Amino acid sequence: MWTNTQDKALQARAQRVMPGGMYGHESTRLLPADFPQFFQRAQGTRLWDVDGNEYIDYMCAFGPNLLGYGHEAVEAAARAQAQRGDTMTGPSDAMVRLAELFVDTVSHADWAMFCKNGTDATAMALVCARAHRQRRKVLLAQGAYHGAAPWCMPQAAGSTPEDRAHIIPFRYNDLDSLAAAVELAGDDLAGIFATPFRHEAFSDQYLPGADYARAVRRVCDERDALLVVDDVRAGFRMARDCSWSALGVQPDLSTWGKCIANGHPISAMLGSEKARDAAKSIYVTGSFWFSAVPMEAAIATLQLVRDTDYLERIMHTGQLLRDGLQAQAASHGFALRQTGPVQMPQIFFEDDADMRVGYAWTAAAVRRGVYLHPYHNMFINAALTPEDVARTLERTDDAFAELRHSRAALPPQNDPRVMERLRRAALATEPA
Amino acid sequence: MWTNTQDKALQARAQRVMPGGMYGHESTRLLPADFPQFFQRAQGTRLWDVDGNEYIDYMCAFGPNLLGYGHEAVEAAARAQAQRGDTMTGPSDAMVRLAELFVDTVSHADWAMFCKNGTDATAMALVCARAHRQRRKVLLAQGAYHGAAPWCMPQAAGSTPEDRAHIIPFRYNDLDSLAAAVELAGDDLAGIFATPFRHEAFSDQYLPGADYARAVRRVCDERDALLVVDDVRAGFRMARDCSWSALGVQPDLSTWGKCIANGHPISAMLGSEKARDAAKSIYVTGSFWFSAVPMEAAIATLQLVRDTDYLERIMHTGQLLRDGLQAQAASHGFALRQTGPVQMPQIFFEDDADMRVGYAWTAAAVRRGVYLHPYHNMFINAALTPEDVARTLERTDDAFAELRHSRAALPPQNDPRVMERLRRAALATEPA
Repeated sequence: MWTNTQDKALQARAQRVMPGGMYGHESTRLLPADFPQFFQRAQGTRLWDVDGNEYIDYMCAFGPNLLGYGHEAVEAAARAQAQRGDTMTGPSDAMVRLAELFVDTVSHADWAMFCKNGTDATAMALVCARAHRQRRKVLLAQGAYHGAAPWCMPQAAGSTPEDRAHIIPFRYNDLDSLAAAVELAGDDLAGIFATPFRHEAFSDQYLPGADYARAVRRVCDERDALLVVDDVRAGFRMARDCSWSALGVQPDLSTWGKCIANGHPISAMLGSEKARDAAKSIYVTGSFWFSAVPMEAAIATLQLVRDTDYLERIMHTGQLLRDGLQAQAASHGFALRQTGPVQMPQIFFEDDADMRVGYAWTAAAVRRGVYLHPYHNMFINAALTPEDVARTLERTDDAFAELRHSRAALPPQNDPRVMERLRRAALATEPA
Repeated sequence: MWTNTQDKALQARAQRVMPGGMYGHESTRLLPADFPQFFQRAQGTRLWDVDGNEYIDYMCAFGPNLLGYGHEAVEAAARAQAQRGDTMTGPSDAMVRLAELFVDTVSHADWAMFCKNGTDATAMALVCARAHRQRRKVLLAQGAYHGAAPWCMPQAAGSTPEDRAHIIPFRYNDLDSLAAAVELAGDDLAGIFATPFRHEAFSDQYLPGADYARAVRRVCDERDALLVVDDVRAGFRMARDCSWSALGVQPDLSTWGKCIANGHPISAMLGSEKARDAAKSIYVTGSFWFSAVPMEAAIATLQLVRDTDYLERIMHTGQLLRDGLQAQAASHGFALRQTGPVQMPQIFFEDDADMRVGYAWTAAAVRRGVYLHPYHNMFINAALTPEDVARTLERTDDAFAELRHSRAALPPQNDPRVMERLRRAALATEPA
């Protein structure tokens, strides 16, 4: 019997000692009320909330869980290093070995720098692009998420217009818009940020055209600007290399985070020779950036990325899920819009402008032990088996059945914050 | 026999795969050549470099080591949680318990938010101060370190003037300078950042006057601006509370990091009721901000902060070290300038404008197994015993003896980067 009394009690306590009760991307404030906020345990592809409910988890901690929660090889490496030391007065040799391994794994990389947050890596790339030729203008695709700092954050509270003074927006995958933005930058173009594919919340996902990727590369070459591929979210789920390598385009800088140590806290900026002097000139640091444990966890993760079929398994189970859901939805009289790579599913319902159907369906799935997300792209991990997908589909079948009966009576979505996010996503999205 | 061949070999490898071979505050590039860059192990108050040399460590990972490296109670809590899960699709109940514990421990705190870097916490405070009354101007003491982001970072490469468009500098602990800066902000004053005491690299440390602290508080009250005490570096080494509580002044926001989980990666912004709505309105997040292991480590650390005499022990051994070094220096014909609280020693030599004596002495200490720093404040941890201090003093006595013989022949400091830092520090420093 699914209950959430412990979770609701914790949420009430949290209201008193955290502003709004919770913040950031793991907050459930925009989610249906049944979604649990607090969890007690995770193993493999499974997650248990504080009420003891077990879930097949399709969020993977919003990305970090690449190989399965608590992967034994990664955890063994982390435990062994924790015995020796973690945050010390200097790094361990793991920092050099990890940089060497990244250089050996990612085609464009001649060097690496490590940090903690994805935003640390993108902020380093911003500063590095500006330091490269002492220029200021940086192009960002409209609506693309590159982190939570004043120069890029999706909400304006507490920022000033000057924080974005030299940021020029353009429409993703739109050659004319790109050209206009480049003209606007003139001889002050420092760099262009490229999301590997469009994976914004509340939006359909889509891959850019190879012509677009090549055009971005060409502009950066012609103007001696730096091309940054922000692989924080998609890294190692698209390729065992930078995600744009599949399009035949290599960046000057790439930013990584989320899953490079299978859940241990570390992110990275990788660069080519062209960007080395700029990277050498900038001042960046953080209290825990040199800690040894996450570096050993990252080495173990990269070894598994290189030596196992983790990616093919993720793609196989992702495809099974997508195909299964598509057929199942149709059998219940629903049409799904599933977009982006199967490794990072984004699922919306057709004719569901205010998302009331999507919200009701994911809530019904959650109550049945399948953690799906109504507006953020999901993630497949390598511990997910075809049997897990089959079990998932049994439960979603039940959720669809419930929804078929309740659909006509679903109340409109009436959370103004959700509607505002939907409106902004629609403005920023330009499908290819 | 002290050697550093392994370290030098690793540094050569690092040169190839990291820009400049290393970056950030743990880089040894401004230090004497003998200082090791890479470490293999740490336990209690001891540190071992990759060549196997053992040090009594007075840097404590630049702060995080508060209770001794690998403290058993903290590590046991971390290991137990690591078995259950770390980075999951949501936080564990530890997030609520940790926020409650901070609210119960720190006088001004009515709520808490957690992040990873010290810079995350100060950036959140900046954004929060601006969101409070939709104002823009923020006062920072000239030369004070608040992190490595474009609005506050100590070096300009890759930043733009707009990054500091609404930052107004003033001279620390100078009422006239504060008043002038407040006038300049006019009715657009969002907040004032206060370093608990002056603890900048290359500079003598000093405590502010209580009249100055009260004046900052009064201005923030009169103008409805937010007072931020940045306790990232000094937190829990001055008090079991916000560092300015000793001066009788409570901030609206305080920022914490470094040692709040004894080396595990977590930082925090704490706030009073006055700032809650602003904190609720801002968008801040990070991939690993909700991870459960560092939160359990922080809970264990805070319990030890509350329940043990760790602080009195740190103050006792810090005083033993300071008194011992002062007498020892005099007996060898040297005069030391030791400033700031004994828990965070800063040691310079008199008549040593280019620091050649300080560099030679700390290098001699390092070769004898005592890790001292020539230009950054050091840190005492609670695992340091009076016997460790006695052993330290035996070794520094030997270092002073060597220095007495070599002093006249020491070459001038000729690293332009060091001289530049010294010059800038002199400009920013205004002793009380």
